[in-house]
Amino acid sequence: MDEFMQAAIAEARQGRKEGGIPIGSVLRRGNEIVSRGHNKRVQELDPIAHGEMDALRNAGRQRTYRDTVLYTTLMPCYMCAGTIVQFKIPKVVVGEARTFGESKEFLESHGVEVVILDSQECVDMMQEFIEAEPMLWNEDIMEL
Amino acid sequence: MDEFMQAAIAEARQGRKEGGIPIGSVLRRGNEIVSRGHNKRVQELDPIAHGEMDALRNAGRQRTYRDTVLYTTLMPCYMCAGTIVQFKIPKVVVGEARTFGESKEFLESHGVEVVILDSQECVDMMQEFIEAEPMLWNEDIMEL
Repeated sequence: MDEFMQAAIAEARQGRKEGGIPIGSVLRRGNEIVSRGHNKRVQELDPIAHGEMDALRNAGRQRTYRDTVLYTTLMPCYMCAGTIVQFKIPKVVVGEARTFGESKEFLESHGVEVVILDSQECVDMMQEFIEAEPMLWNEDIMEL
Repeated sequence: MDEFMQAAIAEARQGRKEGGIPIGSVLRRGNEIVSRGHNKRVQELDPIAHGEMDALRNAGRQRTYRDTVLYTTLMPCYMCAGTIVQFKIPKVVVGEARTFGESKEFLESHGVEVVILDSQECVDMMQEFIEAEPMLWNEDIMEL
């Protein structure tokens, strides 16, 4: 696992430590991290602050995303997938897609390359959280 | 045009007054406005703060969106359309789809009802803005 996914996992763990949902994300350009983010639904009472959205917000105004890669510990939901398509981010590296995620076909149909690492560390992180906070997880995926 | 779209247009005009992009949105539940928002890319240096996203952020944590309607002055982009699908918002009322918007099919394929008012007022508002600030508009739709 490369340093970018490791940074995304560190963001996720930071989110869990804050009492939030452990999903983290990093925006990469070349060998640089442009920005980092993690889910802040709980911390900021913000339902749109998924990990990927938080990273993109933290990147501020960018001239283009065509030369970037988005890393995320969990398969993007449709909000984040729609954002990746809209922002014309060409590639997404995903920690795991076992816990959640139905957007792969949508992303690929819009020309986005999707790489799924199937990381056991990412799966374990989500399973621990979902067992501890099932209602919060269901709120975040709009399944209440 | 009902009071909800009028409120969305008022949000858009407020955004233009602030030096921003004139797109506004309102989240409705029954006959109440849950929240209002407008594009804040310029004001908050935030590329994810489209009008619809800002309204949803301002609504905070909601138990469900199944009983809501989202109003927006302009056809949603894929970020906002993906969010509508993810949040399970059943209906979107759109001021106009002449200036922008290719997400109608995506929304409808996920069971979202899309009502397009084709408001000349909304079209004129966008045309005035695009003529005055073409670079800013192209940045917002990721066409730089």
